[in-house]
Amino acid sequence: MSLPTRFDWVLLQEFCANVFKKAGLKKQNAELVADSLIQADLRGVDSHGVVRTSIYLKRIEEGMINPAADIEVEKESDSTALVNGNNQIGSVVGVNALKVALKKAKENGVALVGVKNSNHFGTGAYYLLKAIEQNMILLVMSNASQTMPPTGGVRPFLGTNPLAVGVPAGDAVPYILDMATSLVARGKIIVASQKGEEIPLGWAIDKDGNPTTNAEAALEGSVLPVGGPKGYAISMFIDILSGVLTGAGFGKYVNNMYENWEQPQNVGHFFIAIDINKFIPIELFKQRMDQYISEIKAEPKAPNVDEILIPGEIEHRRVIYKKANGIELPSKVVKELQEIAQKYGLDLSQAIFNQKNKEVTK
Amino acid sequence: MSLPTRFDWVLLQEFCANVFKKAGLKKQNAELVADSLIQADLRGVDSHGVVRTSIYLKRIEEGMINPAADIEVEKESDSTALVNGNNQIGSVVGVNALKVALKKAKENGVALVGVKNSNHFGTGAYYLLKAIEQNMILLVMSNASQTMPPTGGVRPFLGTNPLAVGVPAGDAVPYILDMATSLVARGKIIVASQKGEEIPLGWAIDKDGNPTTNAEAALEGSVLPVGGPKGYAISMFIDILSGVLTGAGFGKYVNNMYENWEQPQNVGHFFIAIDINKFIPIELFKQRMDQYISEIKAEPKAPNVDEILIPGEIEHRRVIYKKANGIELPSKVVKELQEIAQKYGLDLSQAIFNQKNKEVTK
Repeated sequence: MSLPTRFDWVLLQEFCANVFKKAGLKKQNAELVADSLIQADLRGVDSHGVVRTSIYLKRIEEGMINPAADIEVEKESDSTALVNGNNQIGSVVGVNALKVALKKAKENGVALVGVKNSNHFGTGAYYLLKAIEQNMILLVMSNASQTMPPTGGVRPFLGTNPLAVGVPAGDAVPYILDMATSLVARGKIIVASQKGEEIPLGWAIDKDGNPTTNAEAALEGSVLPVGGPKGYAISMFIDILSGVLTGAGFGKYVNNMYENWEQPQNVGHFFIAIDINKFIPIELFKQRMDQYISEIKAEPKAPNVDEILIPGEIEHRRVIYKKANGIELPSKVVKELQEIAQKYGLDLSQAIFNQKNKEVTK
Repeated sequence: MSLPTRFDWVLLQEFCANVFKKAGLKKQNAELVADSLIQADLRGVDSHGVVRTSIYLKRIEEGMINPAADIEVEKESDSTALVNGNNQIGSVVGVNALKVALKKAKENGVALVGVKNSNHFGTGAYYLLKAIEQNMILLVMSNASQTMPPTGGVRPFLGTNPLAVGVPAGDAVPYILDMATSLVARGKIIVASQKGEEIPLGWAIDKDGNPTTNAEAALEGSVLPVGGPKGYAISMFIDILSGVLTGAGFGKYVNNMYENWEQPQNVGHFFIAIDINKFIPIELFKQRMDQYISEIKAEPKAPNVDEILIPGEIEHRRVIYKKANGIELPSKVVKELQEIAQKYGLDLSQAIFNQKNKEVTK
């Protein structure tokens, strides 16, 4: 029997936490991974939400992730640290590295934390929000397995290495940038292919390196970096900081989560945390941010534009909406979660969204 | 009588240094500004080369730049500093801020230096090369006066705020990214307009916010950020770090160097310097960089591509070529420099490139 597809965010998070406990994670880490996935769904970044549960579990089962690993600080100074993720789930590694960064930044004004031996760490925004809560500016980068060619290349060499930056504001919604360094997500090309539609020139190249508008040919080829050589260069320095500098994989040595079942991913991350008070007082900074944001939003709008948005503003609204109205999941994902529930003797149906649940979680 | 247009880089730099001494800069600062301009010309970034001499002089003459100002560290901790440029020429401010950053990074592993009350600081690459000489990774950002609308906006609000990142390598050419956050430089649109050519859709919008292929209409409108909302967001966080966080101008409060003759520019910059040894030993890092770069360059090439290039590689070659063969300047720029020479009783003709000069400067 197939379940409804709308879920209460609190109860779905509890369900996911229970799943990861059954899979061998400590309670605290299981809850952290579940929180990370649900935050992505709430923000509408569905590709990084509970849809990832099955692949994370599969990599644990196949010995590609170590759910019992402890995260170690391998080398440190007052304002820097090199963290060894010891092949734990990426979001557990990421949050532990972030804690080190925020503590050092509080004590010394700034912290740079490099991370090696990690895995896919979810959305960058997840870490940004935690830093913003503590009045910190945070930059987060991660490398990823190969999907984009260098400018002039034919086949994937670089990942769509994400860049994320979070900045607190006063009354305004905080600034949250969380972007891949590709022009568009590969997912958009998959959708075009399924619909039999063409894609705009510039999104992708075919397997021989020719620009293509054919979605099928694009999927056999590579997605392209945002802004051509600019995106290539940005993706590359993210790989340098996350991979070359930390001792993690870089370029072709970051293994594909879906395809490589011989070795851990060896993803690298890089965190830069900034204590605002070291420059100007936090209250003054927040006033200036509010002024800046309100001035941008008050700019005259182009034809057919209703509102000028700040990075992260749409996602902020989605969170409010989905907390009140439930998280809608594709039926394929619900089916996967049902199978997982069955395997571990858990009950997914308890997390279905209804008015009663809604009141429970108020 | 009009002069030839090819100049010896060393002699032209001496000429420029003499010009800035005459304009009221201390010897050391005059030489620094000249060095910064010539480096840009050598790298082929002509828009930031000696062409800027006349506007810098004009702003000094009009009291918009203070050529006698000292740069002050207003606030500092072990790994952070807030620098007040006191409205000195931007490259003098920038180099002084960089010195603070490199010293702190050497002592404490990392340094974040914010700068306020500065002016146009030349190319980011100029600072990167100095950091690379000292085996440091450097990130440099600066805000700039308004040229790009936010996504959905109609008129300029953000600058094409540059992002620059430099990374040392071993035998390979170092990685040097120095990019504006616009899709293309406004200069390309000026050229299209002069030739009566159309520009590709996506480069710019007209003054009402409509996408345009008409170069004239584009010049009355705005250039667009690279990658749409991604470039908008990157430009914005550069403005936040350089301007909102430092107390410099931000958004509309960064004054236009060419148009505003009432107030200093109040440009802000932000430097992040990283001591590689705090993560992995510098020699190992350089080996990894060389491997990374050689693997990228060995990738299969797209049709009609001769070589896969690393960010900064073309500019590196140009420097070698122009040091040997002279710097070619537009006749308009030569004329401006001649007028400046006349005014200050200097002799530009001594800097003309010829075989004899070439041997002198070997």
